[in-house]
Amino acid sequence: MSENKAEAVPAEAVEALSLSGADSNQRQNITPWDVEGAVVDGVRQAIDYEKLTNEFGTRKIDAALLERFEKVTGRPAHLFLRRGIFFSHRELDKILDRYEQGKPFYLYTGRGPSSGSMHIGHMLPFVFCKWLQETFDVPLVIQLTDDEKYLFKNDLKLEQVRENAAKAVREIAAIGFKPEKTFVFSNIDHIGGAFYRNILQISRCITFNAAKATFGFNDSDYIGKIHFPSVQAAPALCSTFPEIFGTRKDIPCLIPCAIDQDPYFRLTRDVAPRLKHKKPSLIHGRFLPALQGPTAKMSSSIDASAVFLSDTAAQIKKKINRYAFSGGRTSLEEHRQFGGDPDVDVPYQYLTYFIDDDQELAALAEGYRKGEISSGEMKARCIQELQHIIGSFQERTKAVTDQLAKDLCDPNFPRPYAALANK
Amino acid sequence: MSENKAEAVPAEAVEALSLSGADSNQRQNITPWDVEGAVVDGVRQAIDYEKLTNEFGTRKIDAALLERFEKVTGRPAHLFLRRGIFFSHRELDKILDRYEQGKPFYLYTGRGPSSGSMHIGHMLPFVFCKWLQETFDVPLVIQLTDDEKYLFKNDLKLEQVRENAAKAVREIAAIGFKPEKTFVFSNIDHIGGAFYRNILQISRCITFNAAKATFGFNDSDYIGKIHFPSVQAAPALCSTFPEIFGTRKDIPCLIPCAIDQDPYFRLTRDVAPRLKHKKPSLIHGRFLPALQGPTAKMSSSIDASAVFLSDTAAQIKKKINRYAFSGGRTSLEEHRQFGGDPDVDVPYQYLTYFIDDDQELAALAEGYRKGEISSGEMKARCIQELQHIIGSFQERTKAVTDQLAKDLCDPNFPRPYAALANK
Repeated sequence: MSENKAEAVPAEAVEALSLSGADSNQRQNITPWDVEGAVVDGVRQAIDYEKLTNEFGTRKIDAALLERFEKVTGRPAHLFLRRGIFFSHRELDKILDRYEQGKPFYLYTGRGPSSGSMHIGHMLPFVFCKWLQETFDVPLVIQLTDDEKYLFKNDLKLEQVRENAAKAVREIAAIGFKPEKTFVFSNIDHIGGAFYRNILQISRCITFNAAKATFGFNDSDYIGKIHFPSVQAAPALCSTFPEIFGTRKDIPCLIPCAIDQDPYFRLTRDVAPRLKHKKPSLIHGRFLPALQGPTAKMSSSIDASAVFLSDTAAQIKKKINRYAFSGGRTSLEEHRQFGGDPDVDVPYQYLTYFIDDDQELAALAEGYRKGEISSGEMKARCIQELQHIIGSFQERTKAVTDQLAKDLCDPNFPRPYAALANK
Repeated sequence: MSENKAEAVPAEAVEALSLSGADSNQRQNITPWDVEGAVVDGVRQAIDYEKLTNEFGTRKIDAALLERFEKVTGRPAHLFLRRGIFFSHRELDKILDRYEQGKPFYLYTGRGPSSGSMHIGHMLPFVFCKWLQETFDVPLVIQLTDDEKYLFKNDLKLEQVRENAAKAVREIAAIGFKPEKTFVFSNIDHIGGAFYRNILQISRCITFNAAKATFGFNDSDYIGKIHFPSVQAAPALCSTFPEIFGTRKDIPCLIPCAIDQDPYFRLTRDVAPRLKHKKPSLIHGRFLPALQGPTAKMSSSIDASAVFLSDTAAQIKKKINRYAFSGGRTSLEEHRQFGGDPDVDVPYQYLTYFIDDDQELAALAEGYRKGEISSGEMKARCIQELQHIIGSFQERTKAVTDQLAKDLCDPNFPRPYAALANK
């Protein structure tokens, strides 16, 4: 067996991540519920983000916008921005205008709590949100779409999704947001009042035709699924949160999310002005690749595709060594002679998400290309980094108090944003 | 001008109640939003309830069931039952079984608060519910579907439907239900918690195909409308009201409603067992005819079709005299000679809803047929009755205290039904 090839993945993962009877040619398929690269001549391709931004009609974050971001905030851009991990946007410039002018806005993100623990891909938008919250010092609302999980996964019971949501609160608390500016809510627990009133108004602006064109629903879908886009849209209207924003309707939000969530907010941007609210701005992230490579995203339903925030140091080591797709050569000799390809090497790719030091990262890529760094060494560096990140995350999760979890989910926990209402 | 023909109705009513360009033949159209008799050779027909029960698959309330009702409850049947005004049912016999066995059940009815004041047609199911509540001594939940009105009437603003719902609470309070066994809730105000959890579960049991087949929705309908049947279904599951029924799932309800609401509950009856609840039973009422006759129901959006509970004595007199369709002859002479037809005479028909004394009613019909009672005299008797009913209703509405309105809408107002939980 070669030194640096990944071991075979379990059957469940093979089935979910490979072709298994697919046509020899398929377009790439990116929806909020499916993320698959195209298939060309029977071979699954990496996700084509260029094509995706064109299809979705979003804008790429270019050097000029990044420069302005740094100038306006007075802070070097986060590594996710520098490295094109958050790579696309809708009207991010308008949010920068507001920040410059001292006008209020807020951040909105979310999580579908499908399993007991987040994987490292779920963590990315939260890590980025934390940085954005620190940078802008603005409120953040986090929607737990436990109702969506229930509606879209017919085998899930209501009790399970509610338990998963409760666990998600503690993990989110461990990210380290400012409690006095952060509100976490489960849809199942929080729908009602101003939230339901906005859902109602949104649901009178979206026809089934529009939902069908945007999400590919069909007549066999349940009416709960068809209606759900109204629920995910509502937190983008500030009046959904009277406890935070009072009676104002003119405070827009910035939504950091993976690009597959864009369809929801494309509809929301159409609806918001009709309800006399500002359109939300968006900043889109790429998917963290599955351990098997960049043709699919990490999936919490396929254990061998993902590194979970609950994994032990030993599990992390095993998963990276066994399953992580390598860009190295088939033998160490060949690798030393011809070098490896960091662009497809999953351990290296993961390191681009987690090592802040650009020089160290460049040195790793160069050493790999030259064959000076072996596949095993790259994996070891990745394991070390993941064990550190996940280990400290687990420490922080243990330290989350019941009081903190309660405060984050209490709409009436004082979030002194009302002061901004005069601006 | 003839003595006893109704005056011309205003243009808006003509348009809404007559053919105005319709085909010369049309099937009757009964949905929760439209009620129209068939058109045969260009003439609008009375609503065919026989045909409707066949199409809907409901059962007629026959003499044997009425007899059992009286035997089980020990009370003479309400005039609405004796006269076939509530004429159809689904498993009313099962509710009688439970009553006999001392097993708990509850009543569920509702109102779509589309206008400021109810008309006398809206009052009927409430009057009947009051009698059922007295007869069975059970809890009653009343859903105000302010969200439905908002979703189905695009010209209505959210503030308007909420105001209408608040007014409806006071009118319902004036009916005289037992406060300690009655819970009135606006969907807009009350959705959340157990109610949303049941909506969610119901919405994962109904496909768009099923909703389309039941309600005639199409792809241009808003996703809010399409989803709404889940909202109207939820109160038929007792677990929607944990404040009243605790954690029980095995308490069925009886739903007294006009027959046009049956499609909602046909779906609900399919869904309830899948969610481990009892199927609701139903008892269906006919529509109170419009002033213009039995081809349409009284409509609150057509002032000249309806007698409102807010009308003054003078308005009632004017409306009956001017607009009520008469079964009398074209002149008083002819009427004395050939007699009138009480079966199509709207003033007489209204009296069948309000005069409890069967002998008096029979005498009115006989006198009319013989020409001894003129159309004007029949109208005068109807006016007298309506003025009395509506006048005393208005007195009671004035007497409704803020505290009573508040208690009726407070889920935590003590409703000592939990005691039944042991049965």
